[in-house]
Parts: sequence; structure tokens; C-alpha cells
Amino acid sequence: MAAGALMAAEMAEQPARLAALAAAWEDTAGRVARIRPSPLAGTVIVARGSSDHAGAYGRYLIELVSRRPVALAAPSLLTLYDARTDHTGYLAVAISQSGRTPEIAATLERMCESGAAGVAITNDADSPLAADAALALPLGAGDEQAVPATKTVTATMAMLALVAAGLGRPPFGADDLRRLADAVAAVRDDPDPADAAADRLAECGRLVTVARGLMLSAALEAALKLKETTRIVAEGLSAADLRHGPIAVIEPGFPVVAMHAAGPARADVVELVAELRDRGAEVLEIADTPDAALPLPTGIPEGLAPILAVVRAQQLALALARRRGLDPDAPAGLTKVTAT
Amino acid sequence: MAAGALMAAEMAEQPARLAALAAAWEDTAGRVARIRPSPLAGTVIVARGSSDHAGAYGRYLIELVSRRPVALAAPSLLTLYDARTDHTGYLAVAISQSGRTPEIAATLERMCESGAAGVAITNDADSPLAADAALALPLGAGDEQAVPATKTVTATMAMLALVAAGLGRPPFGADDLRRLADAVAAVRDDPDPADAAADRLAECGRLVTVARGLMLSAALEAALKLKETTRIVAEGLSAADLRHGPIAVIEPGFPVVAMHAAGPARADVVELVAELRDRGAEVLEIADTPDAALPLPTGIPEGLAPILAVVRAQQLALALARRRGLDPDAPAGLTKVTAT
Repeated sequence: MAAGALMAAEMAEQPARLAALAAAWEDTAGRVARIRPSPLAGTVIVARGSSDHAGAYGRYLIELVSRRPVALAAPSLLTLYDARTDHTGYLAVAISQSGRTPEIAATLERMCESGAAGVAITNDADSPLAADAALALPLGAGDEQAVPATKTVTATMAMLALVAAGLGRPPFGADDLRRLADAVAAVRDDPDPADAAADRLAECGRLVTVARGLMLSAALEAALKLKETTRIVAEGLSAADLRHGPIAVIEPGFPVVAMHAAGPARADVVELVAELRDRGAEVLEIADTPDAALPLPTGIPEGLAPILAVVRAQQLALALARRRGLDPDAPAGLTKVTAT
Repeated sequence: MAAGALMAAEMAEQPARLAALAAAWEDTAGRVARIRPSPLAGTVIVARGSSDHAGAYGRYLIELVSRRPVALAAPSLLTLYDARTDHTGYLAVAISQSGRTPEIAATLERMCESGAAGVAITNDADSPLAADAALALPLGAGDEQAVPATKTVTATMAMLALVAAGLGRPPFGADDLRRLADAVAAVRDDPDPADAAADRLAECGRLVTVARGLMLSAALEAALKLKETTRIVAEGLSAADLRHGPIAVIEPGFPVVAMHAAGPARADVVELVAELRDRGAEVLEIADTPDAALPLPTGIPEGLAPILAVVRAQQLALALARRRGLDPDAPAGLTKVTAT
């Protein structure tokens, strides 16, 4: 089998899964609304790895619509420190592709025992995680065999959009999610920009990805996908955090992948891109602008654009891994279910 | 003036400031207890850069003692997306060394307007941030002139321990904080291990720092300090997150700084260190164990050990910057107050 054949096949399934989730919009939102605590004290999201980056997307979206603070959980508080956190009034959203990462299942269980209404987003409806939750939301993405998660990541992000729809009014609707599925298909069928970018990045050993706001989740996920598949030391940072110190590492020729879409967070990232180019950085943009090295279809609301940007980043990771002679389907030292 | 003279002088002041904060334990805890919302819905912490890493320490400690969830805020939700988050019942802790980062002051102001009880931790009692808060907790660390924050970071962490003491019972007391001040002096007066480690890392271009639980804050801060001062691309990760993908980048000879202290999180980090050494990584430990390359004095409770580990990491950053011919006092392209 060719290097990355599994990953490529799983990436190709994404438009169909996103379209199916768009069709589940009303039903899912209704089920979430029925278990939403009232009054709502806040939401906690618990996940690791790629699921945690999808969680970062949910973190912004759920706070925006629920109008109560959202926290990304620190699982070790419950699993190592035996913290007696009281989750009364909280919605707890746990995300695990396999539903079998012991730490995530144990954390959701403790949160539910201490008063949380638990939602499990997982690709395995029969997993321990799904069993712990008041509401299990299976992704239905089919078996994912490549080690780098792709179709389950975008399905999780779309599922979080549906969860948000059950908690308030997201800045987009089911129709937009359907259009997103088409836009993802358009990116899938246009691999040339990723191949060209892979040529430019073929020799690089380190890289920074940067974005802001909702799109930050895509930058975090892009960095992880590049680390897993290409062994490039890639760190994902918010534009604001990059300015607070890390910008010191950006020397002439330093590669940066900057991600943005039409919306309130764009101006800050575009300004940073200009600043980075002034420092001599080699900036590749993933954006819905005509001059972006890795262009995105236009017309997708900023609230869904991170899903589209993740797909472009997956394509870059795949192309770059192949360009570097690596097989992204089975990176050295990684397994599909992580036992922490 | 010698390279890093300012940074070294400010680092040397840390024991005295920590001892002064130990003396303020009861008074500060009492003032926090008086503004604590009751019932408490949760806590949000808002900060950027080094202050955000101190915030990561507060995030664990405050959830542990307050027994309600703690969130690290996403400032862009309020400053860019105009999110109408209701903070009724929340304690909001904003941290800014200068008190003049516009984004942090604006975010705390919005949180207070929407119901939060606001605490400002800042080194400038007359700053806009201090003016916004119901309770201002000035660090009293004196003017900090070197661009990399050092004495204000450890003072902020200690101040967060005092805030925790106002919200519940931290797993240490004022006496332990006094002993920490002595231990920090012992680290300050023992620069040889950092010089030796700097020799080992002199040529490296990338590095990972790793820890877990409370100590994660120190790993995040160590990575930032190394980026700011040495231009090494250093990423801080939790042991659990490193296993979820990023471990793929760890090739033979890859440098890793692992941090741990006696307590519930140690076993997981020690296990990971063995795994990383099996992969051929060059692991340097910052730990209270006899064989650590960068040893810490023993007998400091795990809840305060991150402060001690940060001081060792500062010493490493300073030594390594000098070894690489850089002046850490004024890294290229950084200013003391970041205007985001």
C-alpha cells in the first residue's frame, strides 16, 4: 500500500460525513437542549490530542452561544490529585475518538458523579465513554485506521457546532454546514497548492502555526498533524501569544503557517503576517483570500471556517510527509489509542 | 553592561520577594475570602505570555482548593467577538506584570461589568488593570527592566498561592512559602548545573519541555523563557499530551527538559522520561532527585515546587543565552509591554 493511503482515504470521506451531520442538526440540537442544566454555571470540555484541538474550537463556540464561561479541563486534577471539584450546574463535554482513553472516561465519570450533565462525543457508540454520559453523540465516521486522526477531527468539530446549536444561536446554520461539506470536497479535489507548499517546506525542521479566535483550534491541530506525520517541530500559537515572547525565535527564512478567514479575528492575524514578513519569515497562508498559498473557498462563515482550514492542513501534512519519505499512516512510536 | 546583567540582578531578588509574600499570607487570604462570590460558580483567569503560565499554576491550585471549575479565559471572545458572557458568581483573576496590556484590562473590565468579582495581580498598583478590579494585589517586586519576566513571574505564582489560601486549604502553608524562599536562594547560589546544561544544549535548535499537573506551568514558562532568550524553538507540553502525537518528533539526540517533584504527578513524568531515553532523547531533569542534571532542593511541597523549578529554568535560559552569545536582557523584536 502506498505511504499515506489510509490517511488519504479517510480524508476523502470528510465531505460525506459533514453533510450527514448537517442533516442531524435539529435532532442533535434538541437532544442537547434537553439535558442542558438550568441555570447553567458553565461548560467544561475534556479531551487530549486532536480531540483537544477540536475542543478548543468548541471552547470558543460554546461560550459565544451559551453566554457562560467554558473551561478546558485539566484531567490530572481528577485522576491524579483526587480533586473534589463540584460540577453542579455544569455541562461536561468529553471527546475521544476511540472512547477508550482511560483518563478521559474516568474524568467524565467523576464530573457526572459530582453533578455535571455529561455529553460524550466519540466514534464508538459502544465505548466506556459513551456509557458514562447522559447523552452520547456518536460521530458515525466509520473505523479510522491511520494513526493521525483526520475524519474524526472534522466530524468532532461539526458535532460541537451541533452542540452549540442546542445551547444558543451559533453565527451560522445547518445550510452553512451543508455548504461547508461542498467546500471541503473542493479542497479535497485541489491538492496542487499543498504539493507546492510541501516543496517549499521539504527541508524545514521547525515551524510555527498561528491564528486567532475560533481559527486558533485549526492552528493547534495543524501543528499536531505536522508533528505526527512529518516530524517537524511545529508549535501552534495564538497571534496574541506569539507577540508575547515566542516571536523572538522568528529569524529570516523561518517558516510560519498563518490561518485566517473573514471575520472579527482576521485583522489581527493579517497584521501579524505583515510583521512576520518584515522579519524575513517565510509565511504561508491558509485563508479564503486570492493570494493565499493554501487557498480556501470563500463564503464559509468564520464560525465554520476552522473545519475547512483543518482539511487544508491535513492535506499539507500528508503531502509533506510523502515529500520527506515518511509514511504518515503509522508514525514511529505512536498508537491509535493512547493509554494515559 | 554585561549580557544578561539586568536579568541576573532581577532573578537574584526573588528570595526576598517570596519571603515578603509569605509574610502577607494571612492578610491577602483574608481579603480574597471577603470578595469571593458565594455560591461560587467558578473562576476565570485571564493573562498572556509568562503571566499566562503563572495562570496555569493558579488554574490547578484554585480548582483544587475552591472545588469549582477554573477556566483560562480566551480574551478574544470579549475583545473581538463581543461575546455576552455572563460572569455572575465567578471570581475573575487577571494577571499582567505591567497592568497596561490593553487586552487584559479590557477583558477584566468586561468580566466585572457582567458580574464577576475581579482580582488584579500586577506589579503596578496604579495601572488601569488595578483600577478595574474589586481587589488589586500588587506584587511589589520593584521595576522589572529585562524583557524576559523573571521576578514578577515567581511573585505572581506566589500571589496565586495566597489567592488559593483565601478560597480554601492549599496543600501547603505560609511556613512552606518561607522555606521556598530559602530554597530559591540556594538555587540562585548554585549556578554550576545550569552552566553545565548550557554546554550540553549549546548547539540545539529545538527542544521540548515536559511536566504534568501543577508542574506543567513551569514547563510552559521554561519553554517561553528559552524561546525569548536563546531563540531555541522550545515547546512546553504535558506528559499526557506529548504521548498523544508530539512524541513522534523525538528522534535520537532530541533534547528534552523534564520537570517533576515529589507528589502525585511525578510517577507519570518519570515513566515518560524512561520512554524518551529509550527513544534516544537527551533528557535533562529539573527535579528534587539526586541524579537530576538540574537539581532542586528537597522538602518543598509539590504545590510550591513549580516556583522553584521556574527559577532553575530561568538560570538555564540565562546561561544558555550567554553561551550562545545573545543578550537576554533585550531579545530582538520584543518590548516589555505588548500592545494586543
